[in-house]
Amino acid sequence: MTKPSGIITLLTDFGLSDPFVGIMHGVLLSKKRDFTLIDLTHGIEPQNVRQAAFWIASSYREFPEGTVHMVVVDPGVGSKRRPLIAEIDGHYFVAPDNGVLSLVVDEAERVDVRYLRLWQLELSRVSNTFHGRDIFSPAAAELAIGKRWMTELGEDAIETYKRLDVQSPSENDGRISGQIFMSDHFGNWFTNIPLKMYESWASPRVRIGELELPLQKTYSEVAPGDVVALTNSFDRLEIAVNQGSARKELPFSVGQAVEIIE
Amino acid sequence: MTKPSGIITLLTDFGLSDPFVGIMHGVLLSKKRDFTLIDLTHGIEPQNVRQAAFWIASSYREFPEGTVHMVVVDPGVGSKRRPLIAEIDGHYFVAPDNGVLSLVVDEAERVDVRYLRLWQLELSRVSNTFHGRDIFSPAAAELAIGKRWMTELGEDAIETYKRLDVQSPSENDGRISGQIFMSDHFGNWFTNIPLKMYESWASPRVRIGELELPLQKTYSEVAPGDVVALTNSFDRLEIAVNQGSARKELPFSVGQAVEIIE
Amino acid sequence: MTKPSGIITLLTDFGLSDPFVGIMHGVLLSKKRDFTLIDLTHGIEPQNVRQAAFWIASSYREFPEGTVHMVVVDPGVGSKRRPLIAEIDGHYFVAPDNGVLSLVVDEAERVDVRYLRLWQLELSRVSNTFHGRDIFSPAAAELAIGKRWMTELGEDAIETYKRLDVQSPSENDGRISGQIFMSDHFGNWFTNIPLKMYESWASPRVRIGELELPLQKTYSEVAPGDVVALTNSFDRLEIAVNQGSARKELPFSVGQAVEIIE
Repeated sequence: MTKPSGIITLLTDFGLSDPFVGIMHGVLLSKKRDFTLIDLTHGIEPQNVRQAAFWIASSYREFPEGTVHMVVVDPGVGSKRRPLIAEIDGHYFVAPDNGVLSLVVDEAERVDVRYLRLWQLELSRVSNTFHGRDIFSPAAAELAIGKRWMTELGEDAIETYKRLDVQSPSENDGRISGQIFMSDHFGNWFTNIPLKMYESWASPRVRIGELELPLQKTYSEVAPGDVVALTNSFDRLEIAVNQGSARKELPFSVGQAVEIIE
Repeated sequence: MTKPSGIITLLTDFGLSDPFVGIMHGVLLSKKRDFTLIDLTHGIEPQNVRQAAFWIASSYREFPEGTVHMVVVDPGVGSKRRPLIAEIDGHYFVAPDNGVLSLVVDEAERVDVRYLRLWQLELSRVSNTFHGRDIFSPAAAELAIGKRWMTELGEDAIETYKRLDVQSPSENDGRISGQIFMSDHFGNWFTNIPLKMYESWASPRVRIGELELPLQKTYSEVAPGDVVALTNSFDRLEIAVNQGSARKELPFSVGQAVEIIE
Repeated sequence: MTKPSGIITLLTDFGLSDPFVGIMHGVLLSKKRDFTLIDLTHGIEPQNVRQAAFWIASSYREFPEGTVHMVVVDPGVGSKRRPLIAEIDGHYFVAPDNGVLSLVVDEAERVDVRYLRLWQLELSRVSNTFHGRDIFSPAAAELAIGKRWMTELGEDAIETYKRLDVQSPSENDGRISGQIFMSDHFGNWFTNIPLKMYESWASPRVRIGELELPLQKTYSEVAPGDVVALTNSFDRLEIAVNQGSARKELPFSVGQAVEIIE
């Protein structure tokens, strides 16, 4: 097992208007006074598992190995969906079994995912609606303390955890086929096509709906209000409107086909 | 006196758009470099003392004993209202004397509330509008450092501090009478009726206005858009609209009578 | 060189909806595990360099000397504008060369500003759009670690860094002439006239547009909805509307002339 870094990150859709996040910090610090707690974001769109999946996969490697990542975007709270713990490429994760770790797993080499053994945590309360406080925080604290093994806190390793229903992008005959995966808060459409699929191409062109666009380097290479295709800072093909919102101004939605041709 | 934990929490209505909160962090860290600072929330509705009173009472016990809690929701800043310091069930508090500690006090066993002796802090500045920076942060730092006693920083213990004007719920003849206390940011109505008053009841029914509802376990036990009565994760009776905002969709307001019958 | 305090503050226009801020925390903690990271605010209006300049100047002295302040409001990201490092009155700064440090410099005694030597950071990636992660965080970490000198990380000290285009207020014949500098998130107009220019005056009166107002101490000295001139908690002359938004309700804009007469 990787030695814990003592850092715990939190990524949720709880927002910051009520003290839900502060309460989780309290539960964690009550387990060990000197954890370092980092709020990745609590602004995930309510119950948007896909957006959470993207952001945790794009963020976790920025932290030292041994960091514990709590991902609590959990439309099924109170239902029978089970909590997961995982060790993936030297990082720990705590999350509901709803596909939110899909992209982390897809891009990893060493993957150990297990159902949490709830009874091992000796929980004093389990509400129907706030598992971030009652289950995920105590589980994250145990992993960050590091005195109990994955094999003790979890059941046997599984491969049957839930996955997001997203087709991987494919390449055929000099044509990459992917789709719109999500939008960020600026309204930029993020596709599922990674830079590495097209970075050696001389002059890639992007097709989406009726549009065909050259690949640009920055937003400002087109006029304000114009559509631009570029590689974003998370190494994905992105469709944006310079100084505008592609989500509002282009008639696309999640799942829309996107192609790159040479 | 309880030994300080070195943790200071902050709960305000300052929002996060301007650096007011960051500035308070700076003042605190300038007093002692290794405090752990936790933002409970800064999203209290402007000047909503009642909401702040609820959230601090629902949050502070999640932290280790000896934690200092700054509660700065302060419509009277610049007026003659006095700052309080308190030690309550092993936790420290700093707050304006406007009732914001009412619910903490109501549910506590050991209560020591005092007016702050301002001159003891040797303050370098006191603005008319930013006592969070100029008074409450220095006071919280002193309590968290723990070298000066409540009896030194405060005047004699008092019982005449301000209280919120809220009637306690009552039970008569198998009928609990309470009221709507506040709404959270999702628009759920929180009542002042605690779970412990009705948890032994077999099949409680909730009456509010023209409505009579069974008590449910989760939002999803009713159809989207329907009204639901349930116990929330802070052990209070709550009136909500599944996937909607009760505050917008039901014609109630704070103070509205609520009953539970068996 | 001033000894680093181990504290790094962050002030950006990135918002908290996406994990951009959390990612920068990760980059910083990966450089040194025990930095203390303080979010001054991430709510600067998008690309509002003037607002960022005001808030960093009004905030940084609240922190211990040796603190590193990252100021990333950067409309020119991806263009040829260069990153700066600075040591100013015992504090360190990392920022784009766009005038955002103007007010810090204006009010300081010891100023050492240099272009960052990018190659000294041995960066593993530099995106076109996220220099907060790729350049400013690694630079801030180096300064906060304190093993490498300003003279090593930066080129020769310069005085040709960009400045905001703001005329300083002036006094003539018992008349102070200034202007509206910015608005805060409550819609209050902040002027560029500091308290020290008029604090010895017996009964200053404020002229703006068609209005002439006495200087008040607090908002509540006028009726709700009325215009009030007062000194704010950052020691500047401010024009506000009691319980309202001056930005919405008064026909002024940034640059509007303001006078104080006796």
